[in-house]
Amino acid sequence: MSESHDSAVEHLEIHECWDLLGANDFGRLAVATETGVDIFPMNYLVRDREIFLRSAPGSKLASITQRPSIAFEVDGRRFRRRWSIVVKGNIDRLGFDSEIVESGILELKSLNPTAKWNYLRISPESVTGRRFKASRR
Amino acid sequence: MSESHDSAVEHLEIHECWDLLGANDFGRLAVATETGVDIFPMNYLVRDREIFLRSAPGSKLASITQRPSIAFEVDGRRFRRRWSIVVKGNIDRLGFDSEIVESGILELKSLNPTAKWNYLRISPESVTGRRFKASRR
Repeated sequence: MSESHDSAVEHLEIHECWDLLGANDFGRLAVATETGVDIFPMNYLVRDREIFLRSAPGSKLASITQRPSIAFEVDGRRFRRRWSIVVKGNIDRLGFDSEIVESGILELKSLNPTAKWNYLRISPESVTGRRFKASRR
Repeated sequence: MSESHDSAVEHLEIHECWDLLGANDFGRLAVATETGVDIFPMNYLVRDREIFLRSAPGSKLASITQRPSIAFEVDGRRFRRRWSIVVKGNIDRLGFDSEIVESGILELKSLNPTAKWNYLRISPESVTGRRFKASRR
């Protein structure tokens, strides 16, 4: 979305984007599907400028394996301003226990400790952030 | 995402989804692009179980015209529970002034009253909602 004509929109520096990503743990993963696109709310964790996600088994993973190019959005509100970070990149599944442990993703609290989780990694190709006036509510 | 095995996840009734959609005005639009997928934070308004969006001119619209199948996500948090609604459907651009006025979209506060806005409508094909335990923050 180009809103460069809108002076109320502030573009964030990359270090500020990573600070905000690191300070939060909930985002939305958008993936391409056979028929269009889907979007999933997910917990995440940042380590070394990569994003680690954990998901319960489901249809999402099939899409991700076939179409690894994804977008991930995290936003928040502070007083009357909202910020939003969009990460674009590729996602892959962590296949080795050592990768999973090293990522720190196991530190994310689990909704269901007995579930067989899938661990995913986003390797960012672009990270953009904006801050703008929050709406009326 | 199938989390039906997770007893902590509550699936919302359709009327509750629409109540939550109607009580909010900020969501994320996921669209397919030539190379993958993109996601845009946007204000919205609900009328007659359709969702109306307003966007500044930009690359997004080109994608939408070519690939009208989209997903739109709205979420929020109340105490220790987070809810998330995902709407899938088709998006089109409102071409007539009468459609724009009738939608009520002009009631959305503008960041920049002088911008030439584009008005979009999502015709939902599916609406699903979940409520789950919020993460540690």
